[in-house]
Amino acid sequence: MRAVDLILDKRAGKELSREEIAFLIGGYVAGEIPDYQVSAWAMAVFFQGMTPQETASLTAVMLESGAALDLSGIPGPFVDKHSTGGVGDKTSLVLAPLMSALGIRDPMMSGRALGHTGGTLDKLEAIPGYRTDLSVERFREILARDGFAMTGQTKDMVPADRLLYALRDVTGTVESIPLITASILSKKAAEGTEALVLDVKYGSGAFMKNPVDAEKLARSLVDAGSAMGMKVWALLTDMDEPLGNMVGNFLEVEESLDCLEGRGPADLMEVTLELAARMAMLGGKAPNPEAGRRLCEACLASGLPRERFLANVKSQGGDPQQLLELRGVYRSPITAEIRAAQTGYIARIDAWKVGRASVSLGVGRNRTGDSVSPTAGLCFHRKRGDPVKAGDLVMSVWAGDEAGLAAALPQLEDAVEYGTVAPPERRLILKERALFRKN
Amino acid sequence: MRAVDLILDKRAGKELSREEIAFLIGGYVAGEIPDYQVSAWAMAVFFQGMTPQETASLTAVMLESGAALDLSGIPGPFVDKHSTGGVGDKTSLVLAPLMSALGIRDPMMSGRALGHTGGTLDKLEAIPGYRTDLSVERFREILARDGFAMTGQTKDMVPADRLLYALRDVTGTVESIPLITASILSKKAAEGTEALVLDVKYGSGAFMKNPVDAEKLARSLVDAGSAMGMKVWALLTDMDEPLGNMVGNFLEVEESLDCLEGRGPADLMEVTLELAARMAMLGGKAPNPEAGRRLCEACLASGLPRERFLANVKSQGGDPQQLLELRGVYRSPITAEIRAAQTGYIARIDAWKVGRASVSLGVGRNRTGDSVSPTAGLCFHRKRGDPVKAGDLVMSVWAGDEAGLAAALPQLEDAVEYGTVAPPERRLILKERALFRKN
Repeated sequence: MRAVDLILDKRAGKELSREEIAFLIGGYVAGEIPDYQVSAWAMAVFFQGMTPQETASLTAVMLESGAALDLSGIPGPFVDKHSTGGVGDKTSLVLAPLMSALGIRDPMMSGRALGHTGGTLDKLEAIPGYRTDLSVERFREILARDGFAMTGQTKDMVPADRLLYALRDVTGTVESIPLITASILSKKAAEGTEALVLDVKYGSGAFMKNPVDAEKLARSLVDAGSAMGMKVWALLTDMDEPLGNMVGNFLEVEESLDCLEGRGPADLMEVTLELAARMAMLGGKAPNPEAGRRLCEACLASGLPRERFLANVKSQGGDPQQLLELRGVYRSPITAEIRAAQTGYIARIDAWKVGRASVSLGVGRNRTGDSVSPTAGLCFHRKRGDPVKAGDLVMSVWAGDEAGLAAALPQLEDAVEYGTVAPPERRLILKERALFRKN
Repeated sequence: MRAVDLILDKRAGKELSREEIAFLIGGYVAGEIPDYQVSAWAMAVFFQGMTPQETASLTAVMLESGAALDLSGIPGPFVDKHSTGGVGDKTSLVLAPLMSALGIRDPMMSGRALGHTGGTLDKLEAIPGYRTDLSVERFREILARDGFAMTGQTKDMVPADRLLYALRDVTGTVESIPLITASILSKKAAEGTEALVLDVKYGSGAFMKNPVDAEKLARSLVDAGSAMGMKVWALLTDMDEPLGNMVGNFLEVEESLDCLEGRGPADLMEVTLELAARMAMLGGKAPNPEAGRRLCEACLASGLPRERFLANVKSQGGDPQQLLELRGVYRSPITAEIRAAQTGYIARIDAWKVGRASVSLGVGRNRTGDSVSPTAGLCFHRKRGDPVKAGDLVMSVWAGDEAGLAAALPQLEDAVEYGTVAPPERRLILKERALFRKN
């Protein structure tokens, strides 16, 4: 077998076999296949795509490049959620304790903020003392006791994904649906989850700017995940505007607590409950999404998910009492307000612009390794569809430093669009693909 | 400027500027841009193509990566021919002395046999004593005196082409028309020629298997060459069957001498004269191809081109008298015959299969650096359209070694197709693109 022949086959649109993909990607991880061949192959994949079986093979080969989490001895069911990333998206922090309260375990391995999107690990670390660098033993222990644990990937999990992603990032081959699919699924398969609900976002603040591309990605994830023997359910959700009212690290922890107390903002509650309904169903706790949603609503009302969240904070090194005391006060002193530029309605708040501004504020990072501020961020007092008078308070803003604030304010002002009439209602859940194979 | 942005632009089908291409390719040659970015860019070029202006920019950037030949002080006009390669194609050995006899200088820098195609340098080196590793000074001296000189490229000419070709060879990005165009034109521009006749071949023994692709390449070469200020004329010629009756190194020198004596095989004479007619025209010796052809026929009949060839043999280290004595006898003793398998007509002789067999015989090489045999090869006694009786002699075959002969014979038998009726006549010159810009 020669790498160049596999590149030529892919260039011609042929399907590579599992053995061929293992030769190429396994060889790359082992240092036997050079990066210049892998990048040419990745560009050919960008243009020619992959079949679902081929994507599943790539996912499996990537998974086998490292050590998967061993969940043996811990009773399931194991259900996780993955979002393709957005602005103000804190549903993970609500879903994990909610599933725990339903008797479903969520072995959640998350990522960090990058570019305009936030990251679950950065939000959790805004809780003083909270540790996201759990050892495998500690992760297993907390997962077994609390029903969920939240950590980052360990270094020996899916090394092929780290290598391949770094190469794709500098060779213009990030935006390939099968490569994105294999990257997501290999990491989720490595954490040992049996079922996966996918929140595939579209709109200005999402990776996929339009619903057509988002649906292609959703379909690819469902097809390849199913081919790997995972139960997968995908929802297409709107990320043209920030989700919820808070964008920031500690700010989003606060808003998650609001949700766990049943009083989160309507858009965030809606997306969270729709995702939760499918997780409950895949975990065998409900026969269909409608029943799942009713179950999740009742569970949230019981207060048990909130208790589970606070218990997890304690397990992972934080102080639940201190967390509750910090609500509403743990804010950077460098602050400003954005007021309505005109009278009328908020027509749209551009999620991408808000995300970029939040990086300036110190919420996120442009480059891997940059530090973030726990107390920076912003809170919307008005959102899309709300009537405003010129001068009304639209946003409160907190920044890590003065320069960041100065950079962010014009970006945030620019992110708010006004109209003279109320905008049409926004559809949060565009569609879902209920393709999952019963295993 | 960032290489990844240029890759993304090319991926999206945008035209890169000369400065952008210089950043990428100049940076690659300088070791500043890594090969994995260049290979991803090359694959994007394979899928998205390049505009003529972009191809001209790439050619110019590649040309500037090294030293061009300095022809100052030598009177022109300088006209060269380039063939995209084939089996039995020895027209260069006839064209260069013919042009010299017409008062046109041909600064010919040629390549070696690779894969199924032969190479001019290997053929010339089959003449005992003939040197193709001329210094630049010696090349200039012979070109000035004999009107032509035949050598390989020097190491400091177009290093970008050597680097890029080696990378393309292992990354599945050879078959890109703009990349092929820039590779050909940058080398021809480096040898200092003002005008170029292109013999773009199609058929089983050619790089381009069908006339449609060959025409695309011809158009690209003419457009980019014109954009660089070169006079360019392209012919599409048939390479579905070997050209002439001889395939081999010394054997093809012999057949070139036959042509110079006006008694070469009809197909070879036809292609040679049609190419020569355009070279004469581009060199200002004839107003149109028809007049050019008449001029070349008369010139050949004068015997002067043959004299010029023998003078060049002497200039480049060979012995003209010895060469003439070796005609018909300088053959490997390891020999065999191929006889007609059936009575009827030769319907077709597959050039690709003959080319592959000739590598087994020792005429060519599979890998750069392999040695070749001067005296191996084959001679056709019958060709397409000839009537045969079962048992008639079709080919004489000479091999570098017994193993090569054993491997080649079944390949050669397989290359000959028979029919019960005469096949339709073969059209040697399919079409020409007379696009050239008068400078």
